Amino acid sequence: MNAETDQNTTALRQAGEAARAAARILARSPRSQRDDALRAAANALRANASDILAANERDVAASTATAAFRDRLMLNPARLGSMAKGLEDIAELPDPLGRVLADWTRPNGLRIRRMATPIGVIGMIYESRPNVGADAAGLCLKSGNAVILRGGSESFQSAGAINRAIVAGLRTANLPEAVVQIAPTADRSFVAAMLAGAGLIDLIIPRGGKSLVERVQAEARVPVLAHAEGLCHTYIHAKADPEMARRVLANAKMRRTGICGATETLLIDAAIAPSLLPVLIADLRELGCDFRADARARAIVPDLPAANTEDFDTEWLDAMLSVAVVDGVDAALAHITRHGSEHTEAIVTEDEEAAVQFLNGVDSAVVMWNASTQFCDGGEFGFGAEIGIATGRIHARGPVGLEQLTTYRYQLFGTGQVRP
Amino acid sequence: MNAETDQNTTALRQAGEAARAAARILARSPRSQRDDALRAAANALRANASDILAANERDVAASTATAAFRDRLMLNPARLGSMAKGLEDIAELPDPLGRVLADWTRPNGLRIRRMATPIGVIGMIYESRPNVGADAAGLCLKSGNAVILRGGSESFQSAGAINRAIVAGLRTANLPEAVVQIAPTADRSFVAAMLAGAGLIDLIIPRGGKSLVERVQAEARVPVLAHAEGLCHTYIHAKADPEMARRVLANAKMRRTGICGATETLLIDAAIAPSLLPVLIADLRELGCDFRADARARAIVPDLPAANTEDFDTEWLDAMLSVAVVDGVDAALAHITRHGSEHTEAIVTEDEEAAVQFLNGVDSAVVMWNASTQFCDGGEFGFGAEIGIATGRIHARGPVGLEQLTTYRYQLFGTGQVRP
Repeated sequence: MNAETDQNTTALRQAGEAARAAARILARSPRSQRDDALRAAANALRANASDILAANERDVAASTATAAFRDRLMLNPARLGSMAKGLEDIAELPDPLGRVLADWTRPNGLRIRRMATPIGVIGMIYESRPNVGADAAGLCLKSGNAVILRGGSESFQSAGAINRAIVAGLRTANLPEAVVQIAPTADRSFVAAMLAGAGLIDLIIPRGGKSLVERVQAEARVPVLAHAEGLCHTYIHAKADPEMARRVLANAKMRRTGICGATETLLIDAAIAPSLLPVLIADLRELGCDFRADARARAIVPDLPAANTEDFDTEWLDAMLSVAVVDGVDAALAHITRHGSEHTEAIVTEDEEAAVQFLNGVDSAVVMWNASTQFCDGGEFGFGAEIGIATGRIHARGPVGLEQLTTYRYQLFGTGQVRP
Repeated sequence: MNAETDQNTTALRQAGEAARAAARILARSPRSQRDDALRAAANALRANASDILAANERDVAASTATAAFRDRLMLNPARLGSMAKGLEDIAELPDPLGRVLADWTRPNGLRIRRMATPIGVIGMIYESRPNVGADAAGLCLKSGNAVILRGGSESFQSAGAINRAIVAGLRTANLPEAVVQIAPTADRSFVAAMLAGAGLIDLIIPRGGKSLVERVQAEARVPVLAHAEGLCHTYIHAKADPEMARRVLANAKMRRTGICGATETLLIDAAIAPSLLPVLIADLRELGCDFRADARARAIVPDLPAANTEDFDTEWLDAMLSVAVVDGVDAALAHITRHGSEHTEAIVTEDEEAAVQFLNGVDSAVVMWNASTQFCDGGEFGFGAEIGIATGRIHARGPVGLEQLTTYRYQLFGTGQVRP
């Protein structure tokens, strides 16, 4: 263990212990106090706009990354305004705490109540996107969780300036400042300390590229709510309505290509492909999409580039679509089982029997009938806001909003019962 | 990587892939088929009783462990009968799959349904207690999960004989045999392969002593539903009914001392301790309990042995009770926060205000008012059966029954919606 690692372990311990103490107070705070803090933080973001934008300019100026990367890092008054508005929107959402999830009485008179309660201390590890940190802070605060935010090192100045505003909001509402903390250094070894922080951090939420999430999953000694890749499929069944198929596929692929709910692979039924595939390809070409197609698709649309074996396992996050022709629902399901990431899949069909077979046969977090895979989103689900899309199998799957940031505990009400 | 490790990694891969394929079929099986398998397995356990008991005799004969250990390992006709009955009882429980957990329609007409679904492949790591494996197999089968069972190496022959009966049940019901598998070897390195089995195993459930659970938590690269220690407190408040306090405490401590819901520490309010503590001590002494008491308790009952600093952090699992005198609910909460394991705590009081303060202030999986901590049990909760008591903070807390062995996914029903 070198000196830097040692130092970061100590820093994480201090942050974690402060977070734990803050979380205990936050967990018992009334909704109004948490909402006040969110609104005050939004005001502080606006009041400190010039400081925040100046800090962000320093980050952007120091960055040597790609233009796309720097665009995600960059703040401007409009983006800062959305960030503040985001916190105010979270304040308007229903309180996820104190919900009675179940309530029953046993034959011996013992009443058992399952109540929603905060998880505790959350460690959020994300890339250099300042808005992700602000959203995560707002969602954690509202759901009664303390959070330690570790954004990409290129956003270190921005994260600090934003955090000062959020802490000002906490102070205004008389909540502990340690409810929202940021990594005290840009050292990567602080991430390692977080991942080793069993007992200090209750849940790590990684959000970012595949390599970030995979590193977290491989190294964490703390439970992880993974936000890994979305290799989403849209399957156009033989009995699809052609116009609906065109509309849904164009949206699923091209509305935004960089989000995890974007369709990456088109599966089209052999029975409808000869008539429909050329139209779908033409639609998407007009929107700027390129393709990697299997031999059966290329037999129908000969100028499609050929797919290699890895293409069907690739999350493009770009204007690129893998295309395969399949024979019926079973073949579509087999393709998805082999190549999918259990994120979101859709079928387009007018045939209810086929739809039900698909809905029951796909084991992804989200499966859709006649809708765009881009609906896999906390806002579109009505959650108001989301911290990400979970791709693991326990605790929460799909969009993670306020409810998914809670856990539960039992309260038992007795009259002196003893166990026989 | 040595040859044994290599071999076990290969064995785990084979088991995991077979389990995955079996889980897919099981997940879509109707309730009746799963229940038939459970009943047929119960019959096979009875029909093969002599083989199973003979295998168990070989295990017991080979064991050099303590008498208590060998007692947990040992089967007899009555215990085998309970094991079979346990599977039949699970068959009677409601189906945890296909439950509609939520169902709503968005303003755009998109209907969203959250459905209970199996977790997938579960890895169960437990000690040399053959009945734990049979119960776990039954609960996993019913909840649509494939399971790989790795019991203590001393129970290897017993586990094999029991597994042959369960597999016979699966075969009778025409379900894949790989739904329930046991570790193919008694090598400890198979456990390491399970813990490294990301992608093959979806959830590890460790059940056993503290060292086993801690090893699993430290090494696992797979999500863990930990079943760690239960350092449970019973707090006798100043306004407790003395007779109720005597009855509840005696049960909480002494009904069974070896279960995780047994009370390990008595906190008694200073206001009631002078009159009540001597009575409580006398009651428990009569039941064979010994004590480790703080100075304030010893000032009231001078012949109590003195507690050292570690005693309040010790899960006795024995006829031993730590005793401390505290000043009011806040002091009780502070003691529990410092020494507790977030398992189960109880308050005995006639004062509703104090009870509410305690119920809201304790962040354990289970908190009780006027009841014995030994009620922390899946059966007592009405779950019918349990695989254990979860002590982590995500996915499930407290007793883990069939519902807690499920996760969820979303089904969306559209009419061609696209995202704006």
